[in-house]
Amino acid sequence: MSGLLGSIEGPQDVRRLTVEELPRLAGEIRDVLVDACARFGGHLGPNLGVVELTIALHRVFDSPRDPIIWDTGHQSYVHKLLTGRAAGFEALKQEGGLSGYPSQAESEHDFVENSHASTALSYADGLAKAFKLHRDRQGDRHGDPDTSSDPGRTAVAVIGDGALTGGMAWEALNNIAAIKDLPVVIVVNDNGRSYSPTIGGLASHLSSLRVNRRYEDVLEYVKDKIGNVPVLYDALHGFKKGVKDVLAPQVMFEDLGLKYVGPIDGHDEQAMEAALRQARDFRGPVIVHALTQKGRGYTPAENHDEDQFHSPGAFDRATGAEKPKGRIWTNVFSEELVRLGKERDDLVAITAAMLHPTGLNAFAEAYPDRIYDVGIAEQHALTSAAGLALGGLHPVVAVYATFLNRAFDQLLMDVALHRLPVTVVLDRAGVTGDDGASHNGMWDLSILQVVPGLRVAVPRDGDRLTELLREAVEVTDGPTVLRFPKGPVAEPIEAVGKLGEMDLLRAAAAEPDVLLVGVGPMAQVCMDAAVLLDAQGISATVVDPRWVKPLDEALVLAAGAHKLVAVAEDNGRVGGVGDAVARLLRDADVDVPVRTYGIPQQFLDHAKRAVILGRVGLTGQDLARQITEAVARRSSAEEPVRR
Amino acid sequence: MSGLLGSIEGPQDVRRLTVEELPRLAGEIRDVLVDACARFGGHLGPNLGVVELTIALHRVFDSPRDPIIWDTGHQSYVHKLLTGRAAGFEALKQEGGLSGYPSQAESEHDFVENSHASTALSYADGLAKAFKLHRDRQGDRHGDPDTSSDPGRTAVAVIGDGALTGGMAWEALNNIAAIKDLPVVIVVNDNGRSYSPTIGGLASHLSSLRVNRRYEDVLEYVKDKIGNVPVLYDALHGFKKGVKDVLAPQVMFEDLGLKYVGPIDGHDEQAMEAALRQARDFRGPVIVHALTQKGRGYTPAENHDEDQFHSPGAFDRATGAEKPKGRIWTNVFSEELVRLGKERDDLVAITAAMLHPTGLNAFAEAYPDRIYDVGIAEQHALTSAAGLALGGLHPVVAVYATFLNRAFDQLLMDVALHRLPVTVVLDRAGVTGDDGASHNGMWDLSILQVVPGLRVAVPRDGDRLTELLREAVEVTDGPTVLRFPKGPVAEPIEAVGKLGEMDLLRAAAAEPDVLLVGVGPMAQVCMDAAVLLDAQGISATVVDPRWVKPLDEALVLAAGAHKLVAVAEDNGRVGGVGDAVARLLRDADVDVPVRTYGIPQQFLDHAKRAVILGRVGLTGQDLARQITEAVARRSSAEEPVRR
Repeated sequence: MSGLLGSIEGPQDVRRLTVEELPRLAGEIRDVLVDACARFGGHLGPNLGVVELTIALHRVFDSPRDPIIWDTGHQSYVHKLLTGRAAGFEALKQEGGLSGYPSQAESEHDFVENSHASTALSYADGLAKAFKLHRDRQGDRHGDPDTSSDPGRTAVAVIGDGALTGGMAWEALNNIAAIKDLPVVIVVNDNGRSYSPTIGGLASHLSSLRVNRRYEDVLEYVKDKIGNVPVLYDALHGFKKGVKDVLAPQVMFEDLGLKYVGPIDGHDEQAMEAALRQARDFRGPVIVHALTQKGRGYTPAENHDEDQFHSPGAFDRATGAEKPKGRIWTNVFSEELVRLGKERDDLVAITAAMLHPTGLNAFAEAYPDRIYDVGIAEQHALTSAAGLALGGLHPVVAVYATFLNRAFDQLLMDVALHRLPVTVVLDRAGVTGDDGASHNGMWDLSILQVVPGLRVAVPRDGDRLTELLREAVEVTDGPTVLRFPKGPVAEPIEAVGKLGEMDLLRAAAAEPDVLLVGVGPMAQVCMDAAVLLDAQGISATVVDPRWVKPLDEALVLAAGAHKLVAVAEDNGRVGGVGDAVARLLRDADVDVPVRTYGIPQQFLDHAKRAVILGRVGLTGQDLARQITEAVARRSSAEEPVRR
Repeated sequence: MSGLLGSIEGPQDVRRLTVEELPRLAGEIRDVLVDACARFGGHLGPNLGVVELTIALHRVFDSPRDPIIWDTGHQSYVHKLLTGRAAGFEALKQEGGLSGYPSQAESEHDFVENSHASTALSYADGLAKAFKLHRDRQGDRHGDPDTSSDPGRTAVAVIGDGALTGGMAWEALNNIAAIKDLPVVIVVNDNGRSYSPTIGGLASHLSSLRVNRRYEDVLEYVKDKIGNVPVLYDALHGFKKGVKDVLAPQVMFEDLGLKYVGPIDGHDEQAMEAALRQARDFRGPVIVHALTQKGRGYTPAENHDEDQFHSPGAFDRATGAEKPKGRIWTNVFSEELVRLGKERDDLVAITAAMLHPTGLNAFAEAYPDRIYDVGIAEQHALTSAAGLALGGLHPVVAVYATFLNRAFDQLLMDVALHRLPVTVVLDRAGVTGDDGASHNGMWDLSILQVVPGLRVAVPRDGDRLTELLREAVEVTDGPTVLRFPKGPVAEPIEAVGKLGEMDLLRAAAAEPDVLLVGVGPMAQVCMDAAVLLDAQGISATVVDPRWVKPLDEALVLAAGAHKLVAVAEDNGRVGGVGDAVARLLRDADVDVPVRTYGIPQQFLDHAKRAVILGRVGLTGQDLARQITEAVARRSSAEEPVRR
């Protein structure tokens, strides 16, 4: 790494640069960002928007003494570049390379690794309370805290306007505002876009200027109204009416008593520094409101209407053209839902700020009066769906599997307790790979097991996805969940028969040894394993239960006819379908041994999906080897039941 | 039932009464409320506060055509009295009697049975969207919706000021405000108290008048400023500054573009009717802000400082004196935490608007700078705890077990992923009983199993609670959870030995048959069962694992020495400790049969804890019978492993 960036080993080097050098630094950073994302894919748009903001943060605050918490950590690339990790961009998000999110293992400047939105303010609240407690105790000992030469530590949170639609952010603000000397600075990175245009009353109430926002226009308008110099306001009461309407997040701050600086041009590094210094020196909760432009400085991103290159795959740097992805699971769902919407006018769809990533955009285009984008608000999404169902409609809620954890209570109490027909579609279920630990959808098949009356389906291929989606929306007496993974849709496997409602994919030879239960895409893995087991003289049956909750009673009979049952699922192996199969058999007094294969119950490092599946043993070869060993151990044991 | 109340079979009868008769009706209602709660316990304070408000609702709206959604349904007693259920108050909350919450089985006027707070606005959003879709389609067919004589249906939500501190409420408001003709009326029942004084910037920013509020003073002040006649405001911009400071929830509505009527004297039935009529006729989202007094009309409740008889047990009607409760699990926790707080100044405590019910009030009195009440905001509670832990402190978060479901994602991603030392204490874990399905803490031992690095302890008695709490706060490399039930603390059972970290409570005879694993208070049930099994010639060992996650490896050896393993837990039997024991043994190739006993995985009807435990088979006698049968079935099977 040459240039200014090559000389930066940490924030102290950023502070050492002259004001005149900073634009050059920003340019070099953008160059690295575009280059790395073009090669590996990544969160380009958000990071291009926070270049100057991040430089200013590291010149004003003393990280890691003053922790900087990045909400939805995907906006931390610039922060990584400024904290000595420029070299890591040679292998961004690759196995063994730099994570796409903050990482405690990478740097003492990183605190929060979770990528779920709207958490930063709560972290900052807790950190600042700890700093305050320490400061107050020091003060107690010294007699007078105000004369201390040490200004104490400040917790800094950077949060996007989109993440402010999440309820957690409101909970945190309500708490932060209650302590007048809590040392916390909240930077609102307002690009008006979150993933796509920010949703809700907050956004729609803005002036038409802001809704059709062009960053430059808004900025000019603001400067015209309040001038260029940031001022620390007591509240927003002092604002001119016209300016108030430009600002999205103000409504949350006003009358909470939070101090406010802004709006600032987030690409004017010197203005940002001035505002942050004021906020820092106030020693109480302050909002710094920065207006930024997603995709700033890379024309294809700036001009990209859908999401300003929020998180493209690899692309051609010169043109911005993304490499074609092929047909993915999401496409199959997207198209089938449009067909279903035509057949049934009671079908409505809900997304939590993920219209395009979940494929609901096609439904939205076809039936604009039947789509609801609720913002980053999974809790509301589920309970609003409950209300829609009470009103006689059948809602389909499409979210990433990992984000359903946010709405577990709502699915359990608001939907299931009331036996409401809501269908939840979980995309990116199972190992997702290079987005890191908090994106893996490896929890749903476990926590969903406890929800009374819920039915869960896992398609093994695209044909089964369309089939099971149809079955799911036909259910009228309770909720249904459908889950499928990230990436290319699996090749179809045709059933050779039925066992109850299960698909028999492969019948074992006359003396069956092992019953393989393949959950969803693991059906193919089981088919591969069966061939290998055959070669070892172990005859294997393969079934796909299709509906994994409740399990089909036919499984009990089938299990009793084998010497071992093996269950494979792309989910954490604790509490998932494997455990459910074992329980089903125990409850029926069928004590045939069961072995369960899934993701080890731990937070996974980032790598490609296929690499991780191989590493955790979810391949045909691994499965065959493990089952062969299990059979051998049982055969060699003198007394099979005890040891 | 005599008097006016005796003549009321439904809302139509309420509408038929003259204005002059209404105060008499209100008096009769209060009489029934106080009488029923004095006998059985119940949510007296909240219901005394909504008598006139509920009468007005049923005179203005046409329930169930216009659904009335009660947030935290415990404020629905008056609604029940006005919808033909007065007789049911003879057995309020008793088995087979009236539920303490809305119940679809009881009445078509009840929609939402869940008692978790802050959901009503989301339900109303969904219902109103369904009504609007229907209305718009009718309009399409008729050409002009405005000329239709049918005003369409309205969704009505009643929510307390306390519940507005929950993030879901903010998510819902942001969505409701985005649709200008959404037929929804939101009644804010503002008693300034929620469970105890409402918390946060919202509350502390209010004028001193409001903070030390006496309902009458506030009301007089408001009337002086804006007069007695409710007016529909465009927003609050028009308000006089002085009045704005009186209002808690305004901050959430302002600039969202929501219409607003208020503040109204919530005990002036005619004023409430006028306000609700205005709101109904607007045909778009409107907030009706009612000021009410918790405990209104029953002097002991009005004068009760802690929580205005929020939810007392049975009490003496004349004096308001509650019957003594005896020593409960909460007391043991409360006292031990105070002791620990003295020993360690890095211990801090967090509650989500449940300071007294969780016993944290003692810690708060002892260490006022180390207690944080975050409002009804479990999500923030957990992530703020993560921040405190990052700041070097050890937070203890005390919540009811069922409410932890609200913060599952935060415990998983914000706390556990970062291996932070946070201790979560779950009170009211397991069957709670008469508060109904959504209060039972029967989910935690299952969903917590999936959290990597989390340790979970379940004390069997008070001595173990103090011991395990001490062990939990000593853990420095990840989160810990401690869970105990509602009610009187269990009698101590002394261990007769150790098996690894497990307590051996009872050693079997020389030829051991059954290993009983008793989780927490189920240890006593297992001890009872063991005696009965002995009498059947089945020799039983009893262990208490103490820490149920991770399980002690010593369990594998112990299991291998028995013919059957039986696990009993006061938790849903899906995915709990029973499944974990079975998995542990499978993974070790120990295929000794396992049987698991817990709560059937379904929503339970209300009844006393002991009654429910008996009904679901979690008694010594039931356990002994089931195990005897299981042993007999196995002995009679020709081939033990297959059938």
